[in-house]
Amino acid sequence: MSTSTMKIYQAVGSPNSRRVRIFIAEKGIDIPTINLDLSTKEQFSDTYSAINSRNVVPTLVLEDGTSIGEVPAICRYLEEMYPEPLLLGSTAKQKVLIGMWDRRMEQEGFAAVMDAVRNSLAGMKGRALTGPHFYDQIPAMVDRSKVRVTNFYTDLDKRLSESPFTAGNEFSIADITTICTIDFATRALQMPFPQTLTAIKRWYDLVESRPSASL
Amino acid sequence: MSTSTMKIYQAVGSPNSRRVRIFIAEKGIDIPTINLDLSTKEQFSDTYSAINSRNVVPTLVLEDGTSIGEVPAICRYLEEMYPEPLLLGSTAKQKVLIGMWDRRMEQEGFAAVMDAVRNSLAGMKGRALTGPHFYDQIPAMVDRSKVRVTNFYTDLDKRLSESPFTAGNEFSIADITTICTIDFATRALQMPFPQTLTAIKRWYDLVESRPSASL
Repeated sequence: MSTSTMKIYQAVGSPNSRRVRIFIAEKGIDIPTINLDLSTKEQFSDTYSAINSRNVVPTLVLEDGTSIGEVPAICRYLEEMYPEPLLLGSTAKQKVLIGMWDRRMEQEGFAAVMDAVRNSLAGMKGRALTGPHFYDQIPAMVDRSKVRVTNFYTDLDKRLSESPFTAGNEFSIADITTICTIDFATRALQMPFPQTLTAIKRWYDLVESRPSASL
Repeated sequence: MSTSTMKIYQAVGSPNSRRVRIFIAEKGIDIPTINLDLSTKEQFSDTYSAINSRNVVPTLVLEDGTSIGEVPAICRYLEEMYPEPLLLGSTAKQKVLIGMWDRRMEQEGFAAVMDAVRNSLAGMKGRALTGPHFYDQIPAMVDRSKVRVTNFYTDLDKRLSESPFTAGNEFSIADITTICTIDFATRALQMPFPQTLTAIKRWYDLVESRPSASL
């Protein structure tokens, strides 16, 4: 299904962009894409600053020119427009449980990986926090963030030993956030999940085999 | 309106609990409340750990015993059950713009204040991050977080010079997050917004005069 009236601004190496790429692929829709080059700081251009005042990717631009930033907001809009397959839940209770688990994965996992990366990589000097402002790296945050990632894995294994998917019985947006977190930790921090955590392994093999995960 | 079948666990001094208290007051509903004493670490009791595995407040417990954590998830559930007055938007576009602005206020404002507080207060030693795990304070984060709060105020003033409320023309959940952020910065960091930021002042006087803001 083509949605030729919207477009998406994103970056190839951006884990937040990947969350949206996977979401779009799971929906089976096709949205024209503009790739930004973060290595030349294209997200700070005047053009993109007018589209996203936080200078972050991704952004969904609607047919009337409205810009939607922030991954959960972008995905919510796509869910409202293209409900099938549902990735944010059907009943009120399911919707909020998926929202809760997606947010926990973000705060306990994704944010921890991001903090470790941004406070350590030479290429991130002066960019220790995402957004329009420039902040110096804090080396002490690197070790703390890595401990957080380790705790995240332990907690996630417990969760996945009790539940087939991150937020319950069905694949949802929370699983997308989780796999993006794990793959980001593996690639950028050389911190894959320990293979002894068999509940994560069972879940990871399942989710990683979906065609969307190759994006 | 009484909702005697649900209950809410919260703490008086918790700014995340205040966000939900204001939301509930704006809805005009009445939910039985259980207050936790964070000073005695009651959130780590076995009873509460079973209710909220992250050991954070607030939690909404539904009539069937389901626990809903995370402020946006709790508010979303209440919005679905008690739509009037709408605080999360009516159209799909309005819903996601409110979600986007609420999240920006959280990430750029609320989280910055929280980081400054948790990494500096003597009573927060070993509790530098919310959640079930214990992390040491990082003193370097205090100054950086205070700079973030200053930048947040400047950005917010620009936004409120272009928009009557945080997320557009109507009062919404994003305004609740914003006033809780400002009042938390004022109380815990002695960082009120500068009175020279007249767009914030116009907005603050309006929102602070609502009966819900006294909670």
